[in-house]
Amino acid sequence: MIEYQVFHQDGNARAGKLDSPHGSILTPIFMPVGTLGTVKAATPEELKKLGTQILLGNTYHLHLRPGDELIRELGGLHQFMNWDGPILTDSGGFQVFSLAKLLKREEEGVIFRSHIDGREIKITPESSIGIQQNLGSTIMMCFDECLELPAKRERIQSSLELTTRWAKRCKESRTSDQALFGIIQGGGEEDLREESLQQLLEIGFDGYAIGGLSVGESNEDMYRVTRHIAPQMPSDRPRYLMGVGEPRDLLEGVEAGVDMFDCVLPTRNARNGSLFTSRGKVSIKQSRYREDPEPLDPDCLCETCQHYSRAYLRHLYLSGEILGMRLNTLHNLHFFLNLMRNAREAILENRFSKFKKDFLEQYLQEESM
Amino acid sequence: MIEYQVFHQDGNARAGKLDSPHGSILTPIFMPVGTLGTVKAATPEELKKLGTQILLGNTYHLHLRPGDELIRELGGLHQFMNWDGPILTDSGGFQVFSLAKLLKREEEGVIFRSHIDGREIKITPESSIGIQQNLGSTIMMCFDECLELPAKRERIQSSLELTTRWAKRCKESRTSDQALFGIIQGGGEEDLREESLQQLLEIGFDGYAIGGLSVGESNEDMYRVTRHIAPQMPSDRPRYLMGVGEPRDLLEGVEAGVDMFDCVLPTRNARNGSLFTSRGKVSIKQSRYREDPEPLDPDCLCETCQHYSRAYLRHLYLSGEILGMRLNTLHNLHFFLNLMRNAREAILENRFSKFKKDFLEQYLQEESM
Repeated sequence: MIEYQVFHQDGNARAGKLDSPHGSILTPIFMPVGTLGTVKAATPEELKKLGTQILLGNTYHLHLRPGDELIRELGGLHQFMNWDGPILTDSGGFQVFSLAKLLKREEEGVIFRSHIDGREIKITPESSIGIQQNLGSTIMMCFDECLELPAKRERIQSSLELTTRWAKRCKESRTSDQALFGIIQGGGEEDLREESLQQLLEIGFDGYAIGGLSVGESNEDMYRVTRHIAPQMPSDRPRYLMGVGEPRDLLEGVEAGVDMFDCVLPTRNARNGSLFTSRGKVSIKQSRYREDPEPLDPDCLCETCQHYSRAYLRHLYLSGEILGMRLNTLHNLHFFLNLMRNAREAILENRFSKFKKDFLEQYLQEESM
Repeated sequence: MIEYQVFHQDGNARAGKLDSPHGSILTPIFMPVGTLGTVKAATPEELKKLGTQILLGNTYHLHLRPGDELIRELGGLHQFMNWDGPILTDSGGFQVFSLAKLLKREEEGVIFRSHIDGREIKITPESSIGIQQNLGSTIMMCFDECLELPAKRERIQSSLELTTRWAKRCKESRTSDQALFGIIQGGGEEDLREESLQQLLEIGFDGYAIGGLSVGESNEDMYRVTRHIAPQMPSDRPRYLMGVGEPRDLLEGVEAGVDMFDCVLPTRNARNGSLFTSRGKVSIKQSRYREDPEPLDPDCLCETCQHYSRAYLRHLYLSGEILGMRLNTLHNLHFFLNLMRNAREAILENRFSKFKKDFLEQYLQEESM
């Protein structure tokens, strides 16, 4: 299935390599999100050129549209979307609890209404794995319950125990050679996070993820939980912080020992004209860029910054041009992928702390302007 | 400015070359339309890869957004949009009469309301040339009056005479070394078309265009007028049929001796899921393509047909994914550019009639299914 090795550690931060049947991934890594069988506005060829090593696909979305059975008939998600590198699929858990209208949660699974056409759909741990097997992803995620924070301690505890029982059923129902990751829950309670981790370790997974963060808690809570639990996760398995996040969140995660990240932020923000630069976020629609002949980020080597001015990007954005969304997406993805490449280099050279400090000093300084 | 030579003639159909300061163009040629400083959904790099040799920019649209003065300050349209090949700009005439709310038409020029914000704007022959000089296009078009057909003969006559007077003023107001084309009007009246051409020849232009077609008349009228007037246009100057059209219209134009074409059809249809194939048009949203693993057009060598199935294109279209518009745009542009490449080859080999007949037989047969 997959193999993971750490090449070098700098404090808790790790530089490693994950080998999979679909290719190798150098960590730490950011995974662009390909919700509906496409990373919005980008082609697989462009993603490769940007240095993308692994994509995320959404089980919930693909189950609804176009349907995982259809994708299986057409040769699986890799062939369907023309991406031959590794793909990680989430379990649908997060979307069921955030996007769909949840009708019933019981031991067996959940019943919800599709956010597309309102029809009732049931997902169980077994069916989530079935869908992910139809998709043929490289790495599958266990179906978990996602709580909104804050929540009461008893509720968090019972939820993480349900997540453990579901995780067991996920592993038992797997019939393919796809890798499977367990998801640690436990909200902001550090001891419950440990309990969740212990229960998952007893079942045994190919990798472990921290779930249930970036769901309404403060940044400091997210960092605290990550710093507490990440170093306790098995050192010989990949560690994945789900759905995170802002550039600073990624660096805090890396510092805590996390290897993998995913988030819709770079792609979604791109389409809204919100762009990440070494000097903080830029809202390209602002009138101060109207006549600005400079590239978006003079320090950036992406195609967008090499060939186009802020004035042009602003014009495309205000005109609603697809090219604007494309160029913005390329830039933002380059920013996130490059941040992880630079982080990795810094780890290998034992200077991650300084790298993080220098980056944030420049990045946060202008953001507050 | 520009030089034009005919390499070979097959009947009235011509294969030639147009040399310009921004590069050479092999004719007959289709010009993708880059309305607002971008061919919608495509990058200049992709356009080059598709074999695009010249783009069209819209004077009316760019005057309104982002403004031609701004584009001039930023180095001209070529630099603004990162396209270093030839660009032809229309005069704004067609959009003023079709898209904007026309308030007043007088000898001096026209006053209209912007379709964006309703403000009053005046365009005269002199200001149209001024705008096109700000844009810095390779080829400028004279500002003309566009009549909707059918129209009364007297109205057509007075209109073409106004267009001639405006054409004279356009030429007189040019202060740059950009090429300038005159536009033949005269509606469906063959003798008035000749009159218009004669008047323009007396002024003298770098090329001549047939305007005022594809504006509501029948196909047969369009073909009749083109077949009548094109062979009378100077043989040592490029001939351009404006705003045309469907694949069949292009071949009829080539057969009549036309060298240049432009139309929003391939790009606009692409975004609506209407795709051109060797066997006619395909509406990709149809349910019969739901599980179809085949490429859109098995005979097509474009990136879309090389890597993606009809089922995937249908899924992207139904999900409103930007990638769908991108892949469809690449395919449709490839189809139009390739059609002209093949037409050119056929002319050079004295088999244009057969090429046209074979193409239409296959293309129209399935379209009527």
